[in-house]
Amino acid sequence: MYKIKIVQTEKEFLYEPGKTLLEILLSENVFVDNPCNGKGVCGKCKVRVVSGIPGDLSSTEKQLLKQEEIDTGVRLSCLIRPDSNMELELMQKERKHNVLNSGYVPEFAKDPDIRKQLIRIQKPSLTDQTSFEDQVSRQTECPVIPAEVLSRIHFHEGLYTAVLHETDKGQLELMALEEGDTSELLYGVAIDIGTTTVVTSLVNMRTSEQAANDSMINAQKHFGLDVLTRITYELENPEDGAARLQEAIVESINAMIGNVCRDAGIEKEQIYEIAVGANSTMMHMLLGVDAVSIGKSPYAPMFVKARDIAAESIGLKAAPGARLYCLPSVSSYIGADIVAGAYVCGLQETNQNVLFIDIGTNGEIVFSNHGELLCCSCAAGPALEGMNISSGMRACEGAIEDMKISEEGIHVKTIGDEPPAGLCGSGIMAAVKELIRTGIVRKDGAFVKPDKLEETDYRRSMLQLNGKKREFVIAKEPASLLVTQGDVRQVQLAKGAILSGFYALLNQAGKQMKDLDQVMIAGQFGAHLPADSLIGAGILPEEIRDKLVYVGNSSKTGAYMALMSRTAKREMEELAGKMEYVELGTIEGYERLFADCLIFPDIAEGGSKGVFKRVRPLL
Amino acid sequence: MYKIKIVQTEKEFLYEPGKTLLEILLSENVFVDNPCNGKGVCGKCKVRVVSGIPGDLSSTEKQLLKQEEIDTGVRLSCLIRPDSNMELELMQKERKHNVLNSGYVPEFAKDPDIRKQLIRIQKPSLTDQTSFEDQVSRQTECPVIPAEVLSRIHFHEGLYTAVLHETDKGQLELMALEEGDTSELLYGVAIDIGTTTVVTSLVNMRTSEQAANDSMINAQKHFGLDVLTRITYELENPEDGAARLQEAIVESINAMIGNVCRDAGIEKEQIYEIAVGANSTMMHMLLGVDAVSIGKSPYAPMFVKARDIAAESIGLKAAPGARLYCLPSVSSYIGADIVAGAYVCGLQETNQNVLFIDIGTNGEIVFSNHGELLCCSCAAGPALEGMNISSGMRACEGAIEDMKISEEGIHVKTIGDEPPAGLCGSGIMAAVKELIRTGIVRKDGAFVKPDKLEETDYRRSMLQLNGKKREFVIAKEPASLLVTQGDVRQVQLAKGAILSGFYALLNQAGKQMKDLDQVMIAGQFGAHLPADSLIGAGILPEEIRDKLVYVGNSSKTGAYMALMSRTAKREMEELAGKMEYVELGTIEGYERLFADCLIFPDIAEGGSKGVFKRVRPLL
Repeated sequence: MYKIKIVQTEKEFLYEPGKTLLEILLSENVFVDNPCNGKGVCGKCKVRVVSGIPGDLSSTEKQLLKQEEIDTGVRLSCLIRPDSNMELELMQKERKHNVLNSGYVPEFAKDPDIRKQLIRIQKPSLTDQTSFEDQVSRQTECPVIPAEVLSRIHFHEGLYTAVLHETDKGQLELMALEEGDTSELLYGVAIDIGTTTVVTSLVNMRTSEQAANDSMINAQKHFGLDVLTRITYELENPEDGAARLQEAIVESINAMIGNVCRDAGIEKEQIYEIAVGANSTMMHMLLGVDAVSIGKSPYAPMFVKARDIAAESIGLKAAPGARLYCLPSVSSYIGADIVAGAYVCGLQETNQNVLFIDIGTNGEIVFSNHGELLCCSCAAGPALEGMNISSGMRACEGAIEDMKISEEGIHVKTIGDEPPAGLCGSGIMAAVKELIRTGIVRKDGAFVKPDKLEETDYRRSMLQLNGKKREFVIAKEPASLLVTQGDVRQVQLAKGAILSGFYALLNQAGKQMKDLDQVMIAGQFGAHLPADSLIGAGILPEEIRDKLVYVGNSSKTGAYMALMSRTAKREMEELAGKMEYVELGTIEGYERLFADCLIFPDIAEGGSKGVFKRVRPLL
Repeated sequence: MYKIKIVQTEKEFLYEPGKTLLEILLSENVFVDNPCNGKGVCGKCKVRVVSGIPGDLSSTEKQLLKQEEIDTGVRLSCLIRPDSNMELELMQKERKHNVLNSGYVPEFAKDPDIRKQLIRIQKPSLTDQTSFEDQVSRQTECPVIPAEVLSRIHFHEGLYTAVLHETDKGQLELMALEEGDTSELLYGVAIDIGTTTVVTSLVNMRTSEQAANDSMINAQKHFGLDVLTRITYELENPEDGAARLQEAIVESINAMIGNVCRDAGIEKEQIYEIAVGANSTMMHMLLGVDAVSIGKSPYAPMFVKARDIAAESIGLKAAPGARLYCLPSVSSYIGADIVAGAYVCGLQETNQNVLFIDIGTNGEIVFSNHGELLCCSCAAGPALEGMNISSGMRACEGAIEDMKISEEGIHVKTIGDEPPAGLCGSGIMAAVKELIRTGIVRKDGAFVKPDKLEETDYRRSMLQLNGKKREFVIAKEPASLLVTQGDVRQVQLAKGAILSGFYALLNQAGKQMKDLDQVMIAGQFGAHLPADSLIGAGILPEEIRDKLVYVGNSSKTGAYMALMSRTAKREMEELAGKMEYVELGTIEGYERLFADCLIFPDIAEGGSKGVFKRVRPLL
């Protein structure tokens, strides 16, 4: 056993040699960024070894680290297996996250599955020995009291409060019996589990009010930042991979339930339902279900249906007997979050042509032709969320979220107005949009050659050569921040994926751009993307500019509606069954469309404003 | 911390002073008989202190122990609180129990709730991404796969075996999915939980065969030998009393499941249902439900309905997802064991007048008038099971189970033909029957005065005086075995309770003795009671001698039928609802009837054979 000390926090702990430093740190809940999940690929899991013997530098480290980093003791924690006492300096800090916790909520019927009812227990007599259970069931129409409930109750006369749950079959179940009159206290929790962020609202189910909110980074980040890395973790740990991922998200949720209860001044024992929207991978992992089949072609999931189970069966801490409702999904890549969004936006009942899009690592698109629904998923990759980008970071304090390039120089806006530390998703989008607008990057995605620019051109000083590769220099101080050719290519692939999905779906529905009445932008990330960036970076075409509507975190809103309305639950389940999923790869001509959609819009300064001339409907 | 060593077994363990020696021994699972549950009343929890300082002799011990016991270091373990290292000699041994494991089984439809079905999972494709769940539900008609089941499964093509459960509402639920074809393996367990003994059969649900049997003393004996003492334990331990009683019986059942699986060469993971018959107190305690209301007037139970719950929810170890079916009860003192018995005997469909009686600490009686059912419970007390009797013991090796008194002397038959160690229930019954027959005890229950007997009368030498009290001496060696006046009074009270219940019930139904077609004797104890004892000791009247039918452990048989037949479950639930319960104490004139029924039958040698002249129908 050796000791590790973290210099910043003075945290100390013992470890057994044998594992990588990254594994040791994560097991102690020390935050180290590790987008590639310890594969020695991303070069992000840096730590500075202040004292101790980290072992020889590997060739991978020599490639991924700069010489000045190596000189000052920086190492990649996934590549070293320490074998001595060590003092470490962490290179990243867990920053405050910028999380969307609101959104559009339509009018809807408040008819929750769960309600309370007062009952009165009479004193028995020798001529009326009616059991406690039968006294309750005569008043509530629940035929039996579950043994778990009975085992917490003592027989005495007087008032009890029954908590009743109506199943999807319309049967009444008794969830709990509380002594006395507790009818004023009935809470639920609505949750959106994102791959990155988990958002929670405590809902007063008697008033429909959101009593408190909280959000947290998904603790599964320890197992990889994106769904595929986490699925790979399951594949590599068939014994307990799924269980450990489940444990991580359940712990996150329990912590948030604790927080919102504290904020609202209630006990978690008053929470009788938890409703969850999530993408399909997160839903599988929440339930401890193997997600491996989601990660590989042909992408068939283990399940898509909604489910209503005992919350405690997966370790969630709420009232004894509390329910967990998982919203329904459509397919591996059209999850419950999208079904919720489609429902919140009323796509099943619109009399218009409405396109719904949730932009993230995957771009999910749903098209409603007067209530007939088609959907697809586009593998955009993590670039749009600021990942796999050389200077990328998540949307937290210090992240550049907007940028303007002009003759006066580069102006950036950062989250929290902190000194710029990197580019988050909206930042890289704004940067690319500006690079296109100023002609620094050409329609085909290549940087302009500096020597093609006049000596006096303001753009020339913003570029540098790294070997033969051109790079755009945002800042050299305090951090060196770049947009590389590789970064632009990442955005270009993402944009191509989403835009081609957009066209393909319209096409499948036999519609044209002019037929579109509305474009709904959903989700955490979309809410931070102004039309200028969306259109300027060529993710969506110019024609939809005036049709954009931002609906916010519609996954959590869907969970909230499910909590408050059994009608909403049944309608979402029905909706999920009606959403026809289109696998883009199976559409004839899709590859050519994708290639066309890689072209950036032709809006370079001085260029034409006509966009997407090369993109044509397929049919 | 001091050490205790048991001389017989050489078992050694440490203890913290503060508790009674009885508590210390029971917590180490050392068997000490304690019928009064450590109240210092019964004088049974004797141990011999070989070395160590047991503390001063209490006045209670002086009363309850003989001088020669005191002289050789015998103490009552519930009355001393040791405070030193000790060596102890145990006074009782756990003897092999004589347990009934068979009985009459009627013909019945085999339509179990649980069955297996083979399903075939197809490899998905890009154009058919049907989820694993949907592939299963299309083949089984189960709409969803429970999350717990999904979390144990990996998606691959090929054969799976679905285990299906049909709920009481007729809905199909998927309990489990096993990889490959396991359709040959499907087991259940039928259990009768008696207050004293628990009996278990492993049932091959494909063939209906009982594959293995086991029985065990109910481990709740540590908390008291009869239901009232155990209920008192719950009352005195409101925090965890019910939970500890539950734990004890669940551990017993798990141990028996282990045994029957080993005997049959199967894994417990092949057991998908456990069906239980039990009296109401045992059923409450199995489910961890507070039984306190059963123990005091007006005796209203917490529940009587059947229930079908997850076996693992109370800690039973079988297949994941296995069900526990608890048979329905009628009232606090007409439990599921009696409903099972009534069902096994076809009382609901007979076209005769049939009386069913289960004799034990309580005598439960059901009368069927061509399918119309009345029932009552008689508080017989533990005497008929050999408890609260000066030389009483349970029905294990060495217990006297039959006796004959004649001029040649006293002839006893013991279980296992061991030297006589005491009288079990059938033994005390046989003894009283013989004492009545020989006129040693008079009709009113009093011993004949020895000086009223001739000097040469063989009976005179069998009697002795203890102060003014007369005692019948069975043996002086190896153990001193007596029947005291107090013992006869105990039996007399028991007989009065049962016989008066018998008449009261007939009476309530407007029937007379001559109307009776059959008398069914059920249960562990009844099976060991020959008609001679039953009638000779005056528990049942002479007139029913030719109408007796012994049906064995009909509680376990009912559990077995429930396991094998959903029809049986539904019919038993219906039957329980139809059994009208009569509380004897509320019947006008019952007290006089009870007094009349205390009289022993008039069959003393030389006396008239006409019996029960004084007993008349009430109305």
